[in-house]
Amino acid sequence: MRLRLPWTGNVSEITIAPVAWREDRVRLLDQTKLPQAEVYLELEDYHDVALAIVEMKVRGAPAIGVAGAYGIALGALQIMAETKREFLTKLEDVFTTIGNTRPTARNLFHAIERMREAAEKAGDIAELRGALVDEAKAIHRDEAEASRKLSGHGAELLKNGDTVLTHCNTGPLATAGYGTALGVIIHAHQQGKKIKVLATETRPLLQGARLTAWELKKMSIPFTLITDTMAGYFMSQGKVSCVIVGADRIAANGDVANKIGTYTLAVLAKEHGVPFYVAAPTSTFDLSLPSGDRIPIERRSPDEVTHIQGMPIAPAGTDAENPAFDVTPHRLISAIITEKGVRREF
Amino acid sequence: MRLRLPWTGNVSEITIAPVAWREDRVRLLDQTKLPQAEVYLELEDYHDVALAIVEMKVRGAPAIGVAGAYGIALGALQIMAETKREFLTKLEDVFTTIGNTRPTARNLFHAIERMREAAEKAGDIAELRGALVDEAKAIHRDEAEASRKLSGHGAELLKNGDTVLTHCNTGPLATAGYGTALGVIIHAHQQGKKIKVLATETRPLLQGARLTAWELKKMSIPFTLITDTMAGYFMSQGKVSCVIVGADRIAANGDVANKIGTYTLAVLAKEHGVPFYVAAPTSTFDLSLPSGDRIPIERRSPDEVTHIQGMPIAPAGTDAENPAFDVTPHRLISAIITEKGVRREF
Repeated sequence: MRLRLPWTGNVSEITIAPVAWREDRVRLLDQTKLPQAEVYLELEDYHDVALAIVEMKVRGAPAIGVAGAYGIALGALQIMAETKREFLTKLEDVFTTIGNTRPTARNLFHAIERMREAAEKAGDIAELRGALVDEAKAIHRDEAEASRKLSGHGAELLKNGDTVLTHCNTGPLATAGYGTALGVIIHAHQQGKKIKVLATETRPLLQGARLTAWELKKMSIPFTLITDTMAGYFMSQGKVSCVIVGADRIAANGDVANKIGTYTLAVLAKEHGVPFYVAAPTSTFDLSLPSGDRIPIERRSPDEVTHIQGMPIAPAGTDAENPAFDVTPHRLISAIITEKGVRREF
Repeated sequence: MRLRLPWTGNVSEITIAPVAWREDRVRLLDQTKLPQAEVYLELEDYHDVALAIVEMKVRGAPAIGVAGAYGIALGALQIMAETKREFLTKLEDVFTTIGNTRPTARNLFHAIERMREAAEKAGDIAELRGALVDEAKAIHRDEAEASRKLSGHGAELLKNGDTVLTHCNTGPLATAGYGTALGVIIHAHQQGKKIKVLATETRPLLQGARLTAWELKKMSIPFTLITDTMAGYFMSQGKVSCVIVGADRIAANGDVANKIGTYTLAVLAKEHGVPFYVAAPTSTFDLSLPSGDRIPIERRSPDEVTHIQGMPIAPAGTDAENPAFDVTPHRLISAIITEKGVRREF
């Protein structure tokens, strides 16, 4: 999708399209191949969409939600059923397959809930498929709109000359829209503020080095790449104005699950009196969980730690752990930026 | 060198020899090739020793000191001079070449000072070369002995069942002896205590994943490799009993320069009430510096950040920073372990 940024004098366009619905297919930019190559996948089977989510060919909580919704729409097109009831039963299998891909990102389950509701609301079986495709497109539009709005709210927090530290990737690639944390930065840049980004590389999967760097280069936003080990050093040198990160799931009390390493950045920010902001659409909130310790944390293959892009970096047989997320308690968070505004109290 | 560990019932031996003097040559284990291959270099020219230090074929503050001393001994053998005065003048060039390799590790300058003193003390020119080779061997012996002793003192701080988080590599490879932080762990393990290690991979150069993992495997000490982003998570889960790291230079007030990322671990340890120990021989102390902000911090090539083992991980032309060390203020350090004992106050 092309995103117009209407708040600048010049109409700029971002042409990063990680997820799209194209003639009854799901088109995905394979993010595991970036930045070396821009490879697009055209998927006709919802199982392939589920696999692409598991393998992180599409990632980022909002983008996972959108890809999941389109995957379900694809599943709906694949279902053979005589009755609405039979259709809905088979659709539950699709929900299960899509829902079992990655446990942490709330947006995926939010999308499944919306798709289930749309299916139940739809009239007869003839209407069902169209209704589900439409609902998936609506989820995409809503996520894009939410990220556009929250980016505008967040940009108000950034001043000319700020250096913003960010973690992982939270731009168009992660959101199938404008971005969350990176959307805020993009918006401030578009407003003409001189913003510099410190991007952490974000091991194990290097989304900062591979994806954030790729997006910032594409948009000509000045940035410096650092290893995750360097964040404390730059904060101690007074070189970080604020930290902005995205979120995969936010509990009712404002505790935030996000990419592993986020919690460390929040502790460092507190130590240095640096504001720590979280940017996420309300579709990332899970009000059923009173606090963050109930958020399921995905554990991925140890190979992602012992290898980098397939190359071994440790002795064969090395034991490793790979929690993909951590939880930052709300007491370490200065504000959460959503499409509804900037919320400082939880 | 073979290190006997006399404090166990069984005489165990560690046969990791990163630096050795062999028939008027310096033998180095090329640590950039580990863990994939054990390649030894036989160097006859002190310029090659200097280059090996720059390229981190030998690294770790104590091992750099030992390699530097042997490099100077090699330089002494290469000097052609008629008088002692001429010899000493030419020897200063050798000191300069060896001293200009890496600025942060104090042990290198400590070794140069000892070599200079030995040269001045020596009698005529016939004695000089032998005196310098002997002094380099003495520096090696002293570093090995200091690390053996400090490991014994530090091991008293570890209890059966502890999980110790460590950063970078501080074992035999880093010290040309027993180890500093890892020496403490090795000693506690040899005492029969059940110790588990959490080893951070330590980007950019992955000394944790490549070297610490290699050493721990060789010594059958149980360990789990994690990315640098995961340290906060494991501390927040109550899974870290203490942190032990080495040091590259320690100021008079107890501020510690060590591998980039150390400061972040110290801040995290404080946040979680986890003891944070530094293990280093007194040759790492620089009493001429009142505090850590005066310690020179080496900046290495950005390529070490944008590439991993030669493979690009970021878009071409990405700007990166690469400070190799950071400074941890003494207020975050529970104790410094040296060959003289465990010091808690500064």
